[in-house]
Amino acid sequence: MHRKFKNRRKKVGLPPGSLVYIGEPKDEVKIRVINYDKENIEKKEFKRIYDCSLLKANGGVTWIDVVGIHQVEIVQKIGECFELHPLVLEDILATDQRPKIEEFPNYIFVVFKVFHFKDGGELEPEQICFVLFPNLLISFQERESRIFQSIEKRLNNSKDIIRTQGVDYLFYSLLDAVIDDYFLVVDKLGEEIEPLEEKAITQPIPPTIQSIHHLRRRVLLLRENLWALRDIIAHYERGLSDLVSKELTLYFRDLRDHIFNSMETTETIREMLASVLDIYLSSVSNRLNEIMKILTVIATIFMPLTFIVGIYGMNLKYMPEINWKWTYPIVWAVMLLTAGGMYVYFKRKGWL
Amino acid sequence: MHRKFKNRRKKVGLPPGSLVYIGEPKDEVKIRVINYDKENIEKKEFKRIYDCSLLKANGGVTWIDVVGIHQVEIVQKIGECFELHPLVLEDILATDQRPKIEEFPNYIFVVFKVFHFKDGGELEPEQICFVLFPNLLISFQERESRIFQSIEKRLNNSKDIIRTQGVDYLFYSLLDAVIDDYFLVVDKLGEEIEPLEEKAITQPIPPTIQSIHHLRRRVLLLRENLWALRDIIAHYERGLSDLVSKELTLYFRDLRDHIFNSMETTETIREMLASVLDIYLSSVSNRLNEIMKILTVIATIFMPLTFIVGIYGMNLKYMPEINWKWTYPIVWAVMLLTAGGMYVYFKRKGWL
Amino acid sequence: MHRKFKNRRKKVGLPPGSLVYIGEPKDEVKIRVINYDKENIEKKEFKRIYDCSLLKANGGVTWIDVVGIHQVEIVQKIGECFELHPLVLEDILATDQRPKIEEFPNYIFVVFKVFHFKDGGELEPEQICFVLFPNLLISFQERESRIFQSIEKRLNNSKDIIRTQGVDYLFYSLLDAVIDDYFLVVDKLGEEIEPLEEKAITQPIPPTIQSIHHLRRRVLLLRENLWALRDIIAHYERGLSDLVSKELTLYFRDLRDHIFNSMETTETIREMLASVLDIYLSSVSNRLNEIMKILTVIATIFMPLTFIVGIYGMNLKYMPEINWKWTYPIVWAVMLLTAGGMYVYFKRKGWL
Amino acid sequence: MHRKFKNRRKKVGLPPGSLVYIGEPKDEVKIRVINYDKENIEKKEFKRIYDCSLLKANGGVTWIDVVGIHQVEIVQKIGECFELHPLVLEDILATDQRPKIEEFPNYIFVVFKVFHFKDGGELEPEQICFVLFPNLLISFQERESRIFQSIEKRLNNSKDIIRTQGVDYLFYSLLDAVIDDYFLVVDKLGEEIEPLEEKAITQPIPPTIQSIHHLRRRVLLLRENLWALRDIIAHYERGLSDLVSKELTLYFRDLRDHIFNSMETTETIREMLASVLDIYLSSVSNRLNEIMKILTVIATIFMPLTFIVGIYGMNLKYMPEINWKWTYPIVWAVMLLTAGGMYVYFKRKGWL
Amino acid sequence: MHRKFKNRRKKVGLPPGSLVYIGEPKDEVKIRVINYDKENIEKKEFKRIYDCSLLKANGGVTWIDVVGIHQVEIVQKIGECFELHPLVLEDILATDQRPKIEEFPNYIFVVFKVFHFKDGGELEPEQICFVLFPNLLISFQERESRIFQSIEKRLNNSKDIIRTQGVDYLFYSLLDAVIDDYFLVVDKLGEEIEPLEEKAITQPIPPTIQSIHHLRRRVLLLRENLWALRDIIAHYERGLSDLVSKELTLYFRDLRDHIFNSMETTETIREMLASVLDIYLSSVSNRLNEIMKILTVIATIFMPLTFIVGIYGMNLKYMPEINWKWTYPIVWAVMLLTAGGMYVYFKRKGWL
Repeated sequence: MHRKFKNRRKKVGLPPGSLVYIGEPKDEVKIRVINYDKENIEKKEFKRIYDCSLLKANGGVTWIDVVGIHQVEIVQKIGECFELHPLVLEDILATDQRPKIEEFPNYIFVVFKVFHFKDGGELEPEQICFVLFPNLLISFQERESRIFQSIEKRLNNSKDIIRTQGVDYLFYSLLDAVIDDYFLVVDKLGEEIEPLEEKAITQPIPPTIQSIHHLRRRVLLLRENLWALRDIIAHYERGLSDLVSKELTLYFRDLRDHIFNSMETTETIREMLASVLDIYLSSVSNRLNEIMKILTVIATIFMPLTFIVGIYGMNLKYMPEINWKWTYPIVWAVMLLTAGGMYVYFKRKGWL
Repeated sequence: MHRKFKNRRKKVGLPPGSLVYIGEPKDEVKIRVINYDKENIEKKEFKRIYDCSLLKANGGVTWIDVVGIHQVEIVQKIGECFELHPLVLEDILATDQRPKIEEFPNYIFVVFKVFHFKDGGELEPEQICFVLFPNLLISFQERESRIFQSIEKRLNNSKDIIRTQGVDYLFYSLLDAVIDDYFLVVDKLGEEIEPLEEKAITQPIPPTIQSIHHLRRRVLLLRENLWALRDIIAHYERGLSDLVSKELTLYFRDLRDHIFNSMETTETIREMLASVLDIYLSSVSNRLNEIMKILTVIATIFMPLTFIVGIYGMNLKYMPEINWKWTYPIVWAVMLLTAGGMYVYFKRKGWL
Repeated sequence: MHRKFKNRRKKVGLPPGSLVYIGEPKDEVKIRVINYDKENIEKKEFKRIYDCSLLKANGGVTWIDVVGIHQVEIVQKIGECFELHPLVLEDILATDQRPKIEEFPNYIFVVFKVFHFKDGGELEPEQICFVLFPNLLISFQERESRIFQSIEKRLNNSKDIIRTQGVDYLFYSLLDAVIDDYFLVVDKLGEEIEPLEEKAITQPIPPTIQSIHHLRRRVLLLRENLWALRDIIAHYERGLSDLVSKELTLYFRDLRDHIFNSMETTETIREMLASVLDIYLSSVSNRLNEIMKILTVIATIFMPLTFIVGIYGMNLKYMPEINWKWTYPIVWAVMLLTAGGMYVYFKRKGWL
Repeated sequence: MHRKFKNRRKKVGLPPGSLVYIGEPKDEVKIRVINYDKENIEKKEFKRIYDCSLLKANGGVTWIDVVGIHQVEIVQKIGECFELHPLVLEDILATDQRPKIEEFPNYIFVVFKVFHFKDGGELEPEQICFVLFPNLLISFQERESRIFQSIEKRLNNSKDIIRTQGVDYLFYSLLDAVIDDYFLVVDKLGEEIEPLEEKAITQPIPPTIQSIHHLRRRVLLLRENLWALRDIIAHYERGLSDLVSKELTLYFRDLRDHIFNSMETTETIREMLASVLDIYLSSVSNRLNEIMKILTVIATIFMPLTFIVGIYGMNLKYMPEINWKWTYPIVWAVMLLTAGGMYVYFKRKGWL
Repeated sequence: MHRKFKNRRKKVGLPPGSLVYIGEPKDEVKIRVINYDKENIEKKEFKRIYDCSLLKANGGVTWIDVVGIHQVEIVQKIGECFELHPLVLEDILATDQRPKIEEFPNYIFVVFKVFHFKDGGELEPEQICFVLFPNLLISFQERESRIFQSIEKRLNNSKDIIRTQGVDYLFYSLLDAVIDDYFLVVDKLGEEIEPLEEKAITQPIPPTIQSIHHLRRRVLLLRENLWALRDIIAHYERGLSDLVSKELTLYFRDLRDHIFNSMETTETIREMLASVLDIYLSSVSNRLNEIMKILTVIATIFMPLTFIVGIYGMNLKYMPEINWKWTYPIVWAVMLLTAGGMYVYFKRKGWL
């Protein structure tokens, strides 16, 4: 969390529209331009852009995939080429954006997040932006991700339905890949539940609580982003956009169902975490009860015995039993009976 | 939960519309075709479909009941025969669908779940899909279930109202059977409450908490599915669909009332579970108090006594009482008085 | 709860519209027919109905009050006489209906519940149904109840406003009586709070928790039914019904205010129960603290004393003090000082 | 609460519109009639009303302030004079009304509550009703209250804006006085927080919980009434009423802001009470920990010592140390070291 | 909180529209008038206003920044010069306003708060008011704040976009500065979380609870004010105001995104505080368990030992072992075995 805070501070005090990349520099920048139609596909890759014409094509569908956005001037150049609004460029670079969809007169701007697992199970967000023109889709990623690779593969296959469809279907396919990825992340978090429940019973100590809350926070984070994605997709499902053909609304409805599936899983995890928390608390109390039972059993058995032997430790002159022959065995018998009685009593109570 | 996660993974990365059955293979596939009108009823059963004409009839109402959907090609064949949308076929096979209703130009697609008890009281969901055409209803089940048998029986009875009505009444009757089944499942869960409350008092240990949460989760699961069914039924109640005649809206309103009855029972169970949880917690505290009372009573009685006998265990030379004749009985008297006083004190406090 | 479950099961699997009484048989059946106008009032009472004409009148307002509905054929006969919908008859007999109002082309069907106290303070629901025609009101009760008696009395009084008004005013008056009855039941539940709070402090044990939750559940039950009544009344308040004259909307608005009064009382009771629960929990903790204080005081006073006397219980040969004359009184002095010091310490801490 | 319950019972079973005063008789009845315009002001006071003409005026604004409503016949007489609806009169007398506003064809009826502090900090509600006609405002109070005195004073001042405005401004001014009064009451409740927080730390016993809940309930009571007042004022703010000129909507907007100020304070108090409750619970646990620390320290120090002296209390024949000269001082040294070690250990742990 | 209460009391009982400053007198009053257009900028500063013409300009955009509002007559004078509504002037002076926006026929009045850190981390609110006319913006602050300095700097730079735009852009820039400031305050609060979590584990005592709630309250305070700011900005984003050109709506949408960013951070802090509270509670329980373990270990080891030595402390005549030569070493062996066994037992249980 704190890194995010710190980076955002870079921008405080600057006039709005200032282009500052607030994330950390990552992989090398790569600009991949894929132009395809039913028959042909053409791929180009650049590290720098000198001329806007490199990015444009005469026909078919064009997908410009910008990987790595820490070089501000590249984003700026693309902004110039396609006349993007300064606030859009600012949002592309400010990688702590909330997921959102914004309609502009001749393009749509979509920004959302995907998540990777870091060491220790922490979730690292990565911001992805789409700018959707008629016949052109520009995507901005912070670094090369596995998510879009399946789409690239499908594009290579000239028989895939994706090749026969417009840029809206490409857009839909990318979102579908993103939502599948969410599913995998949520799924992986779900696998942390069982060991946590185990720990709640065997190790009811504060670090377990911290683990529970750590999982809960990550689940909430995903849920929030899923929720925002749902809003984005609802936009298309309702057929509100001119850039997406009406025939695709069924597909977007399907996407929404997938999102709901993942969201339900997050709900299930939250429910189960509440249950784990209760089990934890119950374990703590149970443990205290167990400790107190041991103490009580010990005290209840040995205090009377110590008292009994104490009696004959007295140095009184006139204690007739002291001189009897059978006193010692009788004392032992009384003590064994007392202890045995206590034992039976606690056994019956189920404490032993 | 986890099995569900795993199976869904089979589909990640595949293009949308891919037909994959994500459940486990079950009973043999059976396709039952029932064609009936006021006078006649004809039943056929297939294991395979070679020709669409086998499934179609010239008049009356046709009910095609597909039991077992793990043979993808059968579902695909039916899809072809009746020109179902690829996403519908995908949903029929993906047995982790959320309940929903979708209107298509010439048919309605309804998907929901029913629940069976497995060993250990776990609820096993089974997905049921309906495709409703004018005069034709296709149902898909994962395996032969008892739910639709009563409807089959009624169809055999030529005087039953169901024979005089259209496919919409058949559809309504099937939903009615499903909702009655929900009622039985909720009812059975309700019977788990009382033993749990008993256990909360007598065995306030973590496994009881786990049982409480297990019941709670199953109730929530049912509730969620009931809620979704309610949405499906509301669709017809409001007379939104052309495929269902307006005269049946009253019947669908009645169905909704039945659903509300079951949902209220789930609410009651949830309320009672909250109460059971409080009773559990109260039991734990009470048990600790009981343990501490025993310890305190024992300590309070025997510590002073041990001190008293300790006094006369001292080996001091000048202790006048030691040589007195009546010291021993007096010490006993003092000790009995002390112990008796403590006993009375604790008796009055209600600890003994 | 469980009886309700069991009875409902009778109906599972039957076709919709089957007439089955799911309650337990109660008093004898009585059909009271009251016909009145400004000048005249005529009362008849039947045990059986052979002919519909017995129930009908030529003018004035008619109130048919059916007490005891376990004889299915009587309800069926009345249904025939007045052409009630089969689902209405089913609802009249199924005494676990949720409160509701349903408009039919020429009558309104209203069903709701009133509550009686059984032994042990349990609330027993009784279902009441109204069917409102122009100039005719049919009421169905499970057994003779005190609620409608005041209305009967008012009908006998020829100067009462009720005699000059139509059937809508009768309907309003009956609802008013019902709501007054709710008020009394809520009021009586409210009186259970104070003893519970007392018990929470003096007997913080699980049965008290059970009592708290028992009261809470009953209050919620009433609240739910009040809420449903509110919906019924809102229907008339808004003047939605042709069968109720617009001039009565003010009266229905007043009824709604009465309902809100009772609902506020239920809210107050719920608030206070939350408070009682906190007091209970606080009492449990307090009690544990008290127990532990006693234990600690006893141990803190007697452990040092026992140690002191233990010292001079040693049989060492070279212990000079043992032979001194003043050792014994000095030991006593030290012990009294120790105990006294502890006493003062705990007194100051407020533990004694 | 219980008094309220009891009184309301007086009305159960009576026909609607019955005039019964359900509060307790209070001060003497006083009817104050103030008639004013820009130039003149005339005040009259009655104890009884024989003739409606006494209450009416030919011009200017008239404010009839009825103090004490337990004399039903006076309210009834006023009702006749101004043709108030019977249900309005019933509401004026039934002093447990929920705050509300009701529009009638030629007047508006407003009822709400103000609160006084009784001994013990309990809040006593007092019901105030306004009936607003064009140029006439009738107010009903249960007893003479300080709230309206400032308005009377302003009326006496011929230069005050109130004299130049219509009855709607008078109405606004009265509401403004009421809302200022709420502010003072909420403010006074806010002052109870700090001592409670103090008590939660120093006296974590059940009565403190009761105080917390007592304050909480009073705050909720005020909040509820403020919320209802807000609804009343929103009615005018939106300019819905013909009886209030549009120019005053700004003033009513201002009133709403004042209400929100008080409601925010109630929210703050609730927040702080939640915090006080947490502090209380934390104090209880902390106290238990402190007690257990003392017990553990004492037991841990004296049990080993008692064991050590017990060893040399044995009467064994062959215990070589017993006869050594330095045994006694060595035993002391060992005991002092043991006790000292424990002391250091607990000191380090921060328990002493 | 209490100061706020006390000050507001100054106004209770006064007629509405009375001008009273309810804050504490602060810095000297300063009135800064900045008039600028694309080419020129002119600054003037006054301590008093004799003549309205000093404040007005012939062209360009004018920003009148009033610092220090405790001199009522200055606010009153400005009110006269620009014909502000008396309720607006009242709101400017009453520094406990809720944030709001009010449209008047020829100006907009906006009031909100910013926050400064006082010693001890307390947040001190400061009220800022804007009155926006065409070509004129008047701002009122309680004292000179750093927030508007960056805007002043930008105004000095003749190439900054702010110089080429109208008063609406100035207004937007000021709001942007305010929202950036909120971000910094929220950010700083976020830094308090980690030390608190540390404290919750190491010092689970009531003051830690107080710190948690203190932070929580401040976060809620900010959140509430952010929420209110969002409402103000939504007004412009939707293009509802004539005074703000449509082209700026994109910028206001961007502002709203910034607010949501800060609000999400407040949500995250709240989530984490809930987690810290759970960790605290878990720490308390854990600590109690630790204490009880120590006590139990000590008691369980030394009670049997004390009993064993007590046996041979008895003065019985016939105790054969007493005279055996090896009794003493055997007793030691038994005792060491007992203690060792306990040690191993507790070691295995993980208590040592």
